[in-house]
Amino acid sequence: MINTFMPINRILMGPGPSNVHPKVLKALSKPALGHLDPQFIELMDEIKDILRYTFKTENDATFVLSGPGSLGMEACLINLVQPGDKVVVCVGGYFANRMTQIVEKIGGKVVVVKETWGRAIDPNKLEYALKQNPDSKVVAFVHAETSTGALSDIKTLSEIVHKYNALVIADTVTSLGAVEVQIDKWEIDAAYSCSQKGLSCVAGMSPITFSQRAVDHIKNRKIPVQSWFNDLNLLLSYWSGPGKRVYHHTAPSNQFYGLHEALLLLKEEGIENSWSRHKENSLKLISRLKELGLEPLVPENERIPNLLTIKVPDGVDEAQVRMDLLNKHNLEIGVGLGELAGKVWRIGLMGYNSNERMIDYFIKSLKEVL
Amino acid sequence: MINTFMPINRILMGPGPSNVHPKVLKALSKPALGHLDPQFIELMDEIKDILRYTFKTENDATFVLSGPGSLGMEACLINLVQPGDKVVVCVGGYFANRMTQIVEKIGGKVVVVKETWGRAIDPNKLEYALKQNPDSKVVAFVHAETSTGALSDIKTLSEIVHKYNALVIADTVTSLGAVEVQIDKWEIDAAYSCSQKGLSCVAGMSPITFSQRAVDHIKNRKIPVQSWFNDLNLLLSYWSGPGKRVYHHTAPSNQFYGLHEALLLLKEEGIENSWSRHKENSLKLISRLKELGLEPLVPENERIPNLLTIKVPDGVDEAQVRMDLLNKHNLEIGVGLGELAGKVWRIGLMGYNSNERMIDYFIKSLKEVL
Repeated sequence: MINTFMPINRILMGPGPSNVHPKVLKALSKPALGHLDPQFIELMDEIKDILRYTFKTENDATFVLSGPGSLGMEACLINLVQPGDKVVVCVGGYFANRMTQIVEKIGGKVVVVKETWGRAIDPNKLEYALKQNPDSKVVAFVHAETSTGALSDIKTLSEIVHKYNALVIADTVTSLGAVEVQIDKWEIDAAYSCSQKGLSCVAGMSPITFSQRAVDHIKNRKIPVQSWFNDLNLLLSYWSGPGKRVYHHTAPSNQFYGLHEALLLLKEEGIENSWSRHKENSLKLISRLKELGLEPLVPENERIPNLLTIKVPDGVDEAQVRMDLLNKHNLEIGVGLGELAGKVWRIGLMGYNSNERMIDYFIKSLKEVL
Repeated sequence: MINTFMPINRILMGPGPSNVHPKVLKALSKPALGHLDPQFIELMDEIKDILRYTFKTENDATFVLSGPGSLGMEACLINLVQPGDKVVVCVGGYFANRMTQIVEKIGGKVVVVKETWGRAIDPNKLEYALKQNPDSKVVAFVHAETSTGALSDIKTLSEIVHKYNALVIADTVTSLGAVEVQIDKWEIDAAYSCSQKGLSCVAGMSPITFSQRAVDHIKNRKIPVQSWFNDLNLLLSYWSGPGKRVYHHTAPSNQFYGLHEALLLLKEEGIENSWSRHKENSLKLISRLKELGLEPLVPENERIPNLLTIKVPDGVDEAQVRMDLLNKHNLEIGVGLGELAGKVWRIGLMGYNSNERMIDYFIKSLKEVL
């Protein structure tokens, strides 16, 4: 017998989704609109506008994909990489590793810049790889590696890439909205994110942006993009605004209402204020964790403020702790992925949840469980 | 200045989205859950179960993609078609034509079975094409062609395909939930649909199902699937239930709540009852339209009950009629696509909207506008 689903109201302090702002939840249940309705086209234009603010870009090709962040990863790679292209991927975690899998599926040749899990990408290693592979067409890296908690200096990485005339793809899934992201200043050619972390929205959408250089590169491809759903040429026509719009797919209207509201809340706070808030609350959380004798995995100046990886102390059953937090305190935290499985917990303090009340609740619950 | 978005409460009688059941809208705004939460995994299992009921299948590989119906189209084709494969596509409208574009992007060789727009696919034409191309690996067709209003006899088409040992892909975007679909009885190897038509849910999800024969074919591919996001091997692991599940992407929890509720409502009604309701209301609508002197494009026994194409009478400004319906009566109907642009209106009477009240409102509004 299947009944109406009643989700438990969890406190989501894992790597995402994070708890959704009540105003965003409310927006989701407004009446659906047709994707051709003039009012819906206005909504799409407004989303483009606020996303430009969020990404700190003037890129015309800034919009949202009707699918999760991993669709955004594939979209960036499949549009910019042609079969046979050499692609440098900086890999210090699970999600960057996924990029290499996608490049291989596209038929690109992957050059891996290997970094220790839990460390920021070393710019010298990237420079060395590009010296050895000056014919690389694209370089891809992850800003905030969700699997390890390490934040890379993508401004410096991007500068190095541009010396070698390659295009830069940056994963900003865990950084956007919570950590400084400067698409234009840092000359990022393509970036994607998700909706359910720093933006405090529900999961399922991928904000994305492409520089004019990237768009020109895509328009001049010799081999057509291997995906229809993710073909930027078609997506740009769909997002081109009143009068010029060409039908592509049926956009998820209610998801877009939620994203619009979430982006609006971020703009009302001021994105710089959001960055500071995440940083301040992160420092508070770390100092409270240290009082409990817990240590972050990542060195101080390489930490993602909104996603901490904490070393599991010797002799502690990490799975039991997570289970107790979930079952006794209704609190979700994250498990270690890949190389870090069993070695760390991942604590998200993102978007709507980045506040002292959550820190207090988390510390109190953790104390009881440990 | 951007404010909270307040969608107009439209009456959606175009080709979709259709109006969403209030219980489904309510479900969307429940608290978000993590994609690893035990309760969320139960939700995924329940969705698989009710989708099997909806598709009339025992296929284990039955689940929902975290993106719209056109992503489902790409998923079926990109998994079943390898570069170089010969693929027969039956084309009698806009959406079947899109299939040919996707096959070309994948590197397949397309054989088109051409049908007149507004007519069901002629099985003899398919048989002829397969006789000429017995080396075809896959045959793809659209059950209910949303652009023309024509419903094809996919049971007969499928029988023909199996004589030639090819795999069958059926688009059930506009049929699922509203028209009889029998995946197992009709031996359909892969089918996809959408959430916003016969299922009365919001847009943005694609229910999908693969026969064991299709799954085996995919597992035995020599060339890996060119997409990571749509790779069935990865998706099956993600949907494999408690204990065996492997992370793939962050599922859109709130969208899934909506779909779960919509499928539950359909099951409560009984899917056979839903098929009858759509048929009966369609006949009522047609007889009312004929009283106004309006004629369906499609011959009687080839009509999609839940999506009627009506010929625009001579001397009538079709765009003005649509605009007046929208602005004066808050009522959305559909425009003609492709070859039928300017020649027809498309009237959806789907899911929650398939009832006499909607027929009355539509006829009353249309009378005033004409």
